Amino acid sequence: MDITIQQAAARLQGMQRVLILSHRSPDGDTLGSAFALQYGLQKLGKMARVVCDDALPEKFGFFMKEGDSFEPETVVSVDVADKTLLGPGLEALYGRLELCVDHHKINRMDEVARYVDVQASATCEIIYELLEIMNVPVDARIADALYTGICTDTGCFQFSNTTPRTHRIAAELMERGAQAEWINRRMFGTKTKSRIQVERYVLEMMEFAYADRVALTVISQQLVQETGIAPDDLDGVAALPRQIEGVEVGITMREREDGSYKVSVRTVAAVDAAALCAKFGGGGHARAAGCALNGELETAKQKLLDAVGQALSQVD
Amino acid sequence: MDITIQQAAARLQGMQRVLILSHRSPDGDTLGSAFALQYGLQKLGKMARVVCDDALPEKFGFFMKEGDSFEPETVVSVDVADKTLLGPGLEALYGRLELCVDHHKINRMDEVARYVDVQASATCEIIYELLEIMNVPVDARIADALYTGICTDTGCFQFSNTTPRTHRIAAELMERGAQAEWINRRMFGTKTKSRIQVERYVLEMMEFAYADRVALTVISQQLVQETGIAPDDLDGVAALPRQIEGVEVGITMREREDGSYKVSVRTVAAVDAAALCAKFGGGGHARAAGCALNGELETAKQKLLDAVGQALSQVD
Repeated sequence: MDITIQQAAARLQGMQRVLILSHRSPDGDTLGSAFALQYGLQKLGKMARVVCDDALPEKFGFFMKEGDSFEPETVVSVDVADKTLLGPGLEALYGRLELCVDHHKINRMDEVARYVDVQASATCEIIYELLEIMNVPVDARIADALYTGICTDTGCFQFSNTTPRTHRIAAELMERGAQAEWINRRMFGTKTKSRIQVERYVLEMMEFAYADRVALTVISQQLVQETGIAPDDLDGVAALPRQIEGVEVGITMREREDGSYKVSVRTVAAVDAAALCAKFGGGGHARAAGCALNGELETAKQKLLDAVGQALSQVD
Repeated sequence: MDITIQQAAARLQGMQRVLILSHRSPDGDTLGSAFALQYGLQKLGKMARVVCDDALPEKFGFFMKEGDSFEPETVVSVDVADKTLLGPGLEALYGRLELCVDHHKINRMDEVARYVDVQASATCEIIYELLEIMNVPVDARIADALYTGICTDTGCFQFSNTTPRTHRIAAELMERGAQAEWINRRMFGTKTKSRIQVERYVLEMMEFAYADRVALTVISQQLVQETGIAPDDLDGVAALPRQIEGVEVGITMREREDGSYKVSVRTVAAVDAAALCAKFGGGGHARAAGCALNGELETAKQKLLDAVGQALSQVD
């Protein structure tokens, strides 16, 4: 059931003890919006606590402060597009959800009262507006949390989801004390040594096809083990192949522990990444999608490249 | 002679045939502000033309349209901090400058009527305000030019020079038609194959010192020749060593054709890059500075590392 932002704000104002669910494999936006909402509700004299089915990455620690202890009365979710994304440990709470706030184009929580704004670059943009409607003053910690969600979900204002509203909210958050430069350096400015090793390897192993319009790279389990790289430290590696000038389709194949491959496809211009991945049972967005492939590496690679070749010939 | 922004606008309004000088080794800000000003003055019925002592990089071509032909009456400069930065071919025009618009902290054009706003992230921010004062409507091409200058000078809103005003101007420019996502991809999202080769090499050759607090890399002439990389494609490579987690001082030594080394130093936190480079006759900002070193590579490297060691021991 879709509701308006005013109705969402009214619901929040009527709640007393609020459990806030973020999605598993938590990122800056789900945690930024969850914690900003926790602090906002606390400022209104309510009890609130963020929960997540996975461990909270240390890099977001600067804005995360543990919430209140209480027997949850009301459950809300932020930035969660599907109940399976709550993770196995929290999925049981789905039936108790009283509000879902999200910005994903495909949100499958339609049994829940939900406010979904697909124009928002990040769920943090929506939380900013909800706090405004509820007259909650945004302090420096809330500003840090919201700024983090916005800068991570927009690739620091670079992606197509960035709107004039995104920039105006960023301006307000800086005025309320968000440590923008420091946060950006933390989110984008540093790389671990193992990340550097992986990037070097990825660049070294890059294969090109179809007159260099396609670049493909493989990240083996051996590499992951040798470098000891943490899974969330691999975020963004999938963007590397497409960054090369002239490349229209960038493919990263990441070997899983069971020997299967997690495939990430990034495209520019005409090639539809989601349609490409759908051929292999996957999905996603037009420019960023994924799928899984089993079997021997060279065979899997060839299947992918054949499908890419077809897609390219259709757009030419 | 320092003047106010209103006085600068009044001066521009009084001009008829305006030659606009940008600095040599032109970047997004000097060209974005120069062309936005050219178009703005043309909208006011004046003749205007941008000139630069170096070739205009192709990547800015989308917003650059040749100006009017005329015998220049009035000369102004944008984003030029020192007359030597005009380049040998334009330096003779220094004496004819009637207005200098800039945002650099150290601007040495004090004989000229100048408006310098060091709070502006980019000269493009100032041009935006000047056009507003002069009631020039910002069209899509002006918006593209100004957005380019702002996003390149702020590292896409990441650097410490980004202010709330920067974000608000970006919002306005997007509303006037700036193709933000497309520009960002052009400026930050793609790398040439030779750039990828150089990055790979830089990461491979990285040396660490002082318990990994210092990272140093050398770019040899041989590498430059083998990869055929263009000089302006090497911009930003100097940022790589400092990007590694834990590194406080990142050093890049670029071999010149004559065998000497152009040294770039990037620091975080307490180490003063300008003071470090001053020891070798160089200079710059606290976090980004440079100098030149002659002689044998290992000796030059050791001199640098000794100076860094001293600097580190002073801040500990």
